[in-house]
Amino acid sequence: MQNYIDLLEELREIDLANQIGSLLGWDQEVIMPKNGASSRAEHLAWISKTVHEKICNPRIGELITSLENEDLDEIQSANVRISKRMHERATCLPTEFVEEFARLRSKAHHTWAEAREKDDISIFRDDLAKILDMTRRKAEYFGYTDSPYDALLDQYETGLTVTRLDPLFQGLRNSVSPLVRLILESGITPSDDWVDGVDWPKESQEMLSQKVSEAIGFDFNSGRRDSSIHPFCGGPNPQDVRWTTRYDESEPFGSLFGSMHETGHGTYEQGRPKTLAYQPAGKACGLGVHESQSRLWENQIGRSLPFCEWVLPLWKDYFPGRLEDVTPEVLWRSVNKIQPSYIRTESDEATYNIHIMIRYELEKMMIEGDVEVDEIPDMWDDYYQRYLGITPPNRKLGVLQDIHWCMGAIGYFPTYTLGNLYAAQLLDSAKEDIADHDEKIRSGNFAPLLAWMRGKIHDRGSILEPADLIEEATGRPPSPEPFVSYLSSKISRLYGIKS
Amino acid sequence: MQNYIDLLEELREIDLANQIGSLLGWDQEVIMPKNGASSRAEHLAWISKTVHEKICNPRIGELITSLENEDLDEIQSANVRISKRMHERATCLPTEFVEEFARLRSKAHHTWAEAREKDDISIFRDDLAKILDMTRRKAEYFGYTDSPYDALLDQYETGLTVTRLDPLFQGLRNSVSPLVRLILESGITPSDDWVDGVDWPKESQEMLSQKVSEAIGFDFNSGRRDSSIHPFCGGPNPQDVRWTTRYDESEPFGSLFGSMHETGHGTYEQGRPKTLAYQPAGKACGLGVHESQSRLWENQIGRSLPFCEWVLPLWKDYFPGRLEDVTPEVLWRSVNKIQPSYIRTESDEATYNIHIMIRYELEKMMIEGDVEVDEIPDMWDDYYQRYLGITPPNRKLGVLQDIHWCMGAIGYFPTYTLGNLYAAQLLDSAKEDIADHDEKIRSGNFAPLLAWMRGKIHDRGSILEPADLIEEATGRPPSPEPFVSYLSSKISRLYGIKS
Repeated sequence: MQNYIDLLEELREIDLANQIGSLLGWDQEVIMPKNGASSRAEHLAWISKTVHEKICNPRIGELITSLENEDLDEIQSANVRISKRMHERATCLPTEFVEEFARLRSKAHHTWAEAREKDDISIFRDDLAKILDMTRRKAEYFGYTDSPYDALLDQYETGLTVTRLDPLFQGLRNSVSPLVRLILESGITPSDDWVDGVDWPKESQEMLSQKVSEAIGFDFNSGRRDSSIHPFCGGPNPQDVRWTTRYDESEPFGSLFGSMHETGHGTYEQGRPKTLAYQPAGKACGLGVHESQSRLWENQIGRSLPFCEWVLPLWKDYFPGRLEDVTPEVLWRSVNKIQPSYIRTESDEATYNIHIMIRYELEKMMIEGDVEVDEIPDMWDDYYQRYLGITPPNRKLGVLQDIHWCMGAIGYFPTYTLGNLYAAQLLDSAKEDIADHDEKIRSGNFAPLLAWMRGKIHDRGSILEPADLIEEATGRPPSPEPFVSYLSSKISRLYGIKS
Repeated sequence: MQNYIDLLEELREIDLANQIGSLLGWDQEVIMPKNGASSRAEHLAWISKTVHEKICNPRIGELITSLENEDLDEIQSANVRISKRMHERATCLPTEFVEEFARLRSKAHHTWAEAREKDDISIFRDDLAKILDMTRRKAEYFGYTDSPYDALLDQYETGLTVTRLDPLFQGLRNSVSPLVRLILESGITPSDDWVDGVDWPKESQEMLSQKVSEAIGFDFNSGRRDSSIHPFCGGPNPQDVRWTTRYDESEPFGSLFGSMHETGHGTYEQGRPKTLAYQPAGKACGLGVHESQSRLWENQIGRSLPFCEWVLPLWKDYFPGRLEDVTPEVLWRSVNKIQPSYIRTESDEATYNIHIMIRYELEKMMIEGDVEVDEIPDMWDDYYQRYLGITPPNRKLGVLQDIHWCMGAIGYFPTYTLGNLYAAQLLDSAKEDIADHDEKIRSGNFAPLLAWMRGKIHDRGSILEPADLIEEATGRPPSPEPFVSYLSSKISRLYGIKS
């Protein structure tokens, strides 16, 4: 199968260039001096152009076609399947369209930022209309069976469709929204007086973040921890994974839970199969599965009572005198405050998915042509009132809060919720296999859970499609039930409320 | 001149790829996690291959040929001249030769390191013989008029030849070697008791390095300071220049003078002409001129009495209580200890060039075929005895100390001495133009000197060949006299010795 070897060689060069682009991006966000920005844009544009030319190379198309009728094993099939999709995606868009869209996104980034800054949607309105128009055209170029929105969803999680998502979000809407209302009506709010009004030194927050990340199993010989304005996990490959967090000396939770979130992404990247280096089959399996790994450690583990029991002594070590009256139960309640809020990124485990559901419903209508651009801002507010019982006081806290639309990233949001659902489903299955799971977490023994994720998720790369991977790992197709059940039980313990 | 525009576009892509390679290299030396090494080698190899393919592109050769008879201005001429040399150098070596040499260098790096570690030259002997053989063949491929060594020198400083270097080194040998002997015979050694036996905290060294670099005029919005095992100056372009130093808490000079050295390189890189971005004519003018900028700030300025007068209060601020009895004169004598030593990189201003001269004489014979590989180690020792009056006690402190030969970098050493000579000649000229130069240094006003270097050297990029640039800047061809005169006068003041 010389053609397969040749295809792998082409894919290897594409991956090398992408790895380099990833490092350039990390450097830009974390340590580049500010005047380096304009030439860095040139570096990244050159990498994009080089990668695009290589993916579009007709030779790749020929190699793929020649291999489709061969007798391939599951890894070979995955490499051919994924590279075929990459090649088709890259070649189906006319060059002029790609360039025009890139220019529009660049312009829209500025008008969105200005509109948000000035709280004036009219500044962004025309560009948003153009983005919707071009995104609809992109969906037509990609092609779809049922909804044009499917073509967009598929970019971020292969095989994701409206038909799959509708029941997931309906399940969440029907279960979580009433729970949130019950909490509100209960009038109970956990006390976290111990957090307010004192300084939380950055150095101590850093030590706590480092210690927890090491305990989870992130390998610092194959990665780094840094700080950046927007926390993220990047780096070129499994031997060099770099995550960041940010520190706010007025409160200590953001950096720790950010660190656990990015550590989750980081352990996934470090666990990708080394034998499939430079191959599409060795990549992480889409954004939903990636988010499952981050939310698992941030929420399912990080905001659990057993974890709080383990981590409290570390808090006391790194912040001497600050937590003398804090019990594991108090810590646990402090990190699990549930309340409706305007900003998605600051929301809690329960309301987070309502934020996503609202965006999902809006995007679907926007792409299917069921809503005019001028109707979107008020419709946004209506949804917030309907599902969270609050109305944003302005557009900045409403429709202008997220960067995704000005980047043309429509179809991306749902993967955040998929991550939460997958995390719950995976943890349920893992607990069936790991004896005394809670006791292990309580004693800081995270190795069995990480090993389970390695075997079931990380080692499998992108050999399967995401939904198939979740089914293989858990024995069941993706479902919202484990998450709803997890959340109901947690809320019941926190607030004494039964759904 | 569409062909000129087309050529610039080809050159721009080559430069972008090289800029990216430079950042990858910086990252590797400074912050990459250790397990990232093997894939980083793949990244760098991919960049090298991509650059090599682009430089060898026959289209570049055609464009250059079409432009050679056009009426070009000095910048256009420089771009055509330099790109022609790049293209010819890249295409004149057979691909098999390039690959074989790369493999040999990689192997030789290991045998050299092991030989040095075990102080056993026999481990490195065969690879050194092969390197000499391949380097001689490379010189034949490049072509030359007089000596094959000329073809090698020209790689690092265009136009450099044995005919130019012989009188320079002869001048140094005749003037500096007797001075060193006189110092030794005088028996005078400056006292620096204040340095020994106390800790020099890294944080304080860092603050001093930072403050001095800022004072010289390095722009930290367009660059960074970091630490690395081997100090260097890198980064992709003038807007993003990154230098490093290293800290030893048992002595405070290494980090400061290292910082001033790299700051000198850094100001040169930051001062390259912005209008010639991505063009060969906008690059620094070879290694000799680069080294002139680093040695200027490290030695001519950094080890001068006026500078010591300015910097002493900073020392006292950052190391409180440590320098109570230290006067500017004591500081000045402490940073100007002259004594023969075995290791080039640790040697003083006077003996440094003797170390280089010895390597130059050896390399010339090695390449011209006047010495057998087995004669080199003892010949090395003989030269050290003849010119510095000392005989290395082992090979580690002798012929095995430097990395250059195992890297195939023969012809590189002389640029270090050229840098020293150019620095002295440039400073002499600058002093003619800058009123009260010493007083300005004494008051920490380094701007006039930096501005002079900007106008005469940095702004000129590679528009001229190095020797022509020095002549344009100083009104005289490169000469050893300013350096010899500077050194004689300094030694006379330090040791009361007249040559």
